Amino acid sequence: MKRKMQRAAQILALGSAALMSSNAVAGLSNEQLLNILLENGAINQAQHDELTKLAQEDSEAAQKKLADEVKVSVKGGQLKFKSGDDEFKFQVGGRIMVDTAWYNADDNVDPSLDWGNGTELRRARLFMKGTVWNNWHFKLQYDFAGDGEIKDAFIKYTGLKQYTDIPLDIIVGNYKEPFSLEELTSSKYITFMERALPNAFAPGRNIGVGLNSYGNVLNGGWSAAAGWFTDGVDNENDDGNNESNAVAGRLTFAPIANKTEVVHFGGAVEYRNYDDSTIRFRSRPEAHTAEHRMVDTKSFLAQDTLKWGLEAAGVYGPFSVQGEYIQTNVTDVNRTGRDADLYGWYAYGSWFITGESRNYSAKKGAFGRVKPKGIVGKGGWGAWELAGRYSSIDLTDGPLNGFKENDITIGLNWYATPTIRFMANYVIADSDNPKFNDPDIFQLRGQIDF
Amino acid sequence: MKRKMQRAAQILALGSAALMSSNAVAGLSNEQLLNILLENGAINQAQHDELTKLAQEDSEAAQKKLADEVKVSVKGGQLKFKSGDDEFKFQVGGRIMVDTAWYNADDNVDPSLDWGNGTELRRARLFMKGTVWNNWHFKLQYDFAGDGEIKDAFIKYTGLKQYTDIPLDIIVGNYKEPFSLEELTSSKYITFMERALPNAFAPGRNIGVGLNSYGNVLNGGWSAAAGWFTDGVDNENDDGNNESNAVAGRLTFAPIANKTEVVHFGGAVEYRNYDDSTIRFRSRPEAHTAEHRMVDTKSFLAQDTLKWGLEAAGVYGPFSVQGEYIQTNVTDVNRTGRDADLYGWYAYGSWFITGESRNYSAKKGAFGRVKPKGIVGKGGWGAWELAGRYSSIDLTDGPLNGFKENDITIGLNWYATPTIRFMANYVIADSDNPKFNDPDIFQLRGQIDF
Amino acid sequence: MKRKMQRAAQILALGSAALMSSNAVAGLSNEQLLNILLENGAINQAQHDELTKLAQEDSEAAQKKLADEVKVSVKGGQLKFKSGDDEFKFQVGGRIMVDTAWYNADDNVDPSLDWGNGTELRRARLFMKGTVWNNWHFKLQYDFAGDGEIKDAFIKYTGLKQYTDIPLDIIVGNYKEPFSLEELTSSKYITFMERALPNAFAPGRNIGVGLNSYGNVLNGGWSAAAGWFTDGVDNENDDGNNESNAVAGRLTFAPIANKTEVVHFGGAVEYRNYDDSTIRFRSRPEAHTAEHRMVDTKSFLAQDTLKWGLEAAGVYGPFSVQGEYIQTNVTDVNRTGRDADLYGWYAYGSWFITGESRNYSAKKGAFGRVKPKGIVGKGGWGAWELAGRYSSIDLTDGPLNGFKENDITIGLNWYATPTIRFMANYVIADSDNPKFNDPDIFQLRGQIDF
Repeated sequence: MKRKMQRAAQILALGSAALMSSNAVAGLSNEQLLNILLENGAINQAQHDELTKLAQEDSEAAQKKLADEVKVSVKGGQLKFKSGDDEFKFQVGGRIMVDTAWYNADDNVDPSLDWGNGTELRRARLFMKGTVWNNWHFKLQYDFAGDGEIKDAFIKYTGLKQYTDIPLDIIVGNYKEPFSLEELTSSKYITFMERALPNAFAPGRNIGVGLNSYGNVLNGGWSAAAGWFTDGVDNENDDGNNESNAVAGRLTFAPIANKTEVVHFGGAVEYRNYDDSTIRFRSRPEAHTAEHRMVDTKSFLAQDTLKWGLEAAGVYGPFSVQGEYIQTNVTDVNRTGRDADLYGWYAYGSWFITGESRNYSAKKGAFGRVKPKGIVGKGGWGAWELAGRYSSIDLTDGPLNGFKENDITIGLNWYATPTIRFMANYVIADSDNPKFNDPDIFQLRGQIDF
Repeated sequence: MKRKMQRAAQILALGSAALMSSNAVAGLSNEQLLNILLENGAINQAQHDELTKLAQEDSEAAQKKLADEVKVSVKGGQLKFKSGDDEFKFQVGGRIMVDTAWYNADDNVDPSLDWGNGTELRRARLFMKGTVWNNWHFKLQYDFAGDGEIKDAFIKYTGLKQYTDIPLDIIVGNYKEPFSLEELTSSKYITFMERALPNAFAPGRNIGVGLNSYGNVLNGGWSAAAGWFTDGVDNENDDGNNESNAVAGRLTFAPIANKTEVVHFGGAVEYRNYDDSTIRFRSRPEAHTAEHRMVDTKSFLAQDTLKWGLEAAGVYGPFSVQGEYIQTNVTDVNRTGRDADLYGWYAYGSWFITGESRNYSAKKGAFGRVKPKGIVGKGGWGAWELAGRYSSIDLTDGPLNGFKENDITIGLNWYATPTIRFMANYVIADSDNPKFNDPDIFQLRGQIDF
Repeated sequence: MKRKMQRAAQILALGSAALMSSNAVAGLSNEQLLNILLENGAINQAQHDELTKLAQEDSEAAQKKLADEVKVSVKGGQLKFKSGDDEFKFQVGGRIMVDTAWYNADDNVDPSLDWGNGTELRRARLFMKGTVWNNWHFKLQYDFAGDGEIKDAFIKYTGLKQYTDIPLDIIVGNYKEPFSLEELTSSKYITFMERALPNAFAPGRNIGVGLNSYGNVLNGGWSAAAGWFTDGVDNENDDGNNESNAVAGRLTFAPIANKTEVVHFGGAVEYRNYDDSTIRFRSRPEAHTAEHRMVDTKSFLAQDTLKWGLEAAGVYGPFSVQGEYIQTNVTDVNRTGRDADLYGWYAYGSWFITGESRNYSAKKGAFGRVKPKGIVGKGGWGAWELAGRYSSIDLTDGPLNGFKENDITIGLNWYATPTIRFMANYVIADSDNPKFNDPDIFQLRGQIDF
């Protein structure tokens, strides 16, 4: 009988816990009350059993109800909703980045090519994303900054995993082609205010359809992504030609990937075919307020381009290094029959003075959010990161004369909270474009994502 | 006394149910406990009554609290909020539609008029809508696709129903003029990727003020809508002229309207007066990626236009048919004193192979969301629909020479979930415009709404 | 023992109240049950104490759980979320304003300068704002109306108050420069459909960084704000020049500030330095649908501008008055070495026929939301307000000839609910610009904010 009583008590405890746990925790007192009443003879064993049964039914109904309940979450600075059974999820959010920059350079021969100090809203985005019926996901994100641009706008299906040994996600819509570690790391998390010069070659977001997969390997993980892509959303062509078409793929391999240690290797290829649509490669001096670009191929025609890139990155506690090399082979420039091989590379190191580590996702093969050990305004001083980068691009080859540029950047980042960051960058730009005197740039950014 | 006890138990049951029902269901164990304690003599009748009274008070307080509580809902793939008393409601959502198309046609004399394959984000919308103080409603919706456009932006009042026998809703703002069944059926629910050729005449959304009503009749219902409208939000005129003005009205009558059977008839009229603002009627070949329009009146002046349309539709289980005829009479074209009568029509049939029925709202006189019997990713195969359409438009009459076009479209729709749909359309376009060789178009769409 | 029992009962009451209060109120019956069982000898004192202790533990766990819970609020017509501990808050909302206007004026010599009747979406905004980690705040707001414009886009820190005697908020991003009472009063709350003519001088929103403070004084309060600002988000300059720079500050003092009585004085200064970027001051005839401006300096160059403004306002029950004088001193107009002193002022009175009072915030030094005593659709008739304004601007001085204008406006406002307002304005405009015959304008607005 003792055992039976204990079982009943357990069930009751479960029942009352379930009843309460949606909003309040536990309710041990009810269970104890019944036990005590039985002990004292105020209720008999049959009554105890009856009450136990009823409590069990209550518990089951309560758990079913719980599953239907929507959980709203704001902790972490993000507004999220999900059904109790995780089948439906929504998030509404965005990001704000505001920049200011000072340029120091000798006057140019053409004064309209001088560098002007200025401020701008670098990014001002809202998004809504979600999961419906468990395996279907979507994201719609818009950037109001500048002339405005649709960013992510895709539908993803993750339900094939029930038929395949490895995850196989299908994506359709506007999203980032799998190419370049720095491009695929969100602007919320990149180490410097702007991506490095060779980012001029990264395809970025285009409309397409693709497959993603990932898994564990050794002490880390791997990721694979491939897809077919046409032009981006803003490349409307009304000239009677087909849009350009590309196939792209990327593989990453991280033999070590934990919270404080990462070794990442990656490679990507994109082949794009053009049908009389024009191409242009160009780059600002790693400052988006810059009114001019010193490296710029100007628009040209080509038959096709073959891009390939190699990536490596490592994290060891507060220290990290990262580098990429990207080459772009252009065939039949401007119908001359001549080709051009353009390339660029960068390498950088970063040190979290306050001891945090860069946060790597082996599943994505990219870096993510850094959470400072102390929150500013809650007794902490945030995370402080010091970083230095060298980057290089060469847009001159064959019939193309887009000039060369090498930039040195020193950066100091202050992560006040996991979602708020202030950045200072000093860029020393050096190009062989005779129209420009090279500028030194000091720029600041305040950013929040939500 | 038995009866008294039962009453007390009922009240307690109600009380504890109310206490729990916000998140957990029922709580029969409490009621039984009190009954058993009374039976066993552990508490007396007076104590039982006292506890009953307290429970009743708890119950009332709990129910009042419940009414103030906000319910968040995500089931169905939509994010909704409402107060417990239904007095305030909000919804945040949007839609994504991504298209790709291949064109097959002989080269045109002017190569810039050729048809180019391509992709696009057809629609990328976010909206927020809501109800405040029960009778006031609003919706603000923006489409980021293309150059961006404000869609619905209105305030609606539904409080007159307390004074009138029939509902009488007042709407002010930017919303769809009551004209054309296919136009008034949301792009989320239309049967083919694009509305038929005569949609060129449908006024669509304009800024105005109107009245809507509806009711039951026979085995179905009716709807009536009328309003005064000026130009749309993007028709800024800075030329010293007044904007054009219109009155429009629509009546629909559905003698049968249930889940699987519908008979719908409708008619609409719009009279619009112009003050030197220009008009243009034109249509793409039922593919929005098309860079050119084979039927196009080009911009012209007119004194006024009178449009009228007739609608009919029927649903019988998985089968449905729908058709419309729209005529537009233009007076005093380009100050020539001559008139032009333009017209178009379409008819189509659809068959849900998987047995679903098109979903009709007699209140709106339009079609709505189809819910597939099985959800893809949860063991089902979604809904599959086969459809065929013939459509025709004639933009040549009097002084206007906008050419004629007839299109045949075969469509296959796959509703993976109630909010996710994939569409394939094959369009055979045929116009008498000599500048163009008629294209065959194969196009695909992926869409989600949330 | 009686006392002990009472204490136990209190604790139990607290416990059950806490357990329930998340969604349901109180639970006195549980407490009474234990008391009665003890009285009747069904449980002994030790058991009572044990149950009391368990209940206390439940209570503490429940209160901890409660603190983690997100509260969703929709009452008041706004959608808000906050964590139980108030550390995180989010709001998603917007506003819709739809206008229509009729112009009455003799024909102008140049017919393209005539005034055309018309409608427009005056404002169509969505925003998301929030508080994260208690002391960090953000807002991102976009207006889809017209060509679209980023409005507020800022990060604010309010955590310095732990180190300073007075609040000291730091703001960075795009927000309103502290200048002009009418400009700083939201368009949701301004008394007339458009701000007065001298609003042409108000800087409005620009990108910058600033400090805000406020406090109590006498029977009211004071506010102080200062900052450094560059150009707004839409002032992209690609001409090799620096953006213009300004410092601005504002002080307000309200010796009386309560719900029905307010006395407000304020003053503000802005000094802006230009580097070859152009300036323009101009104003529509207090109707935004107006296609033309009768006062307009056209674009010109200047070395710098010094603006200063004086404000006064008073509320006495349903009556209120408000007035401002703004002067702008421009130096070295168009490199002529000559200066120009431009100025404007306005004064108005308003009367709430239904007895409400204008709602003043001494902390912001600006007016806020009026809540009608009766809600339309819920048995009330809303709030009705009658108002009259005289405004004046002189844009002619020194080398500038932008003409003068004086407007008289009569306004009638109907606040149907706290968030819905309908406005009627009759404007009698009078300028000395010979190109225009002065128009009388009758305009209507429907607005909702959410």
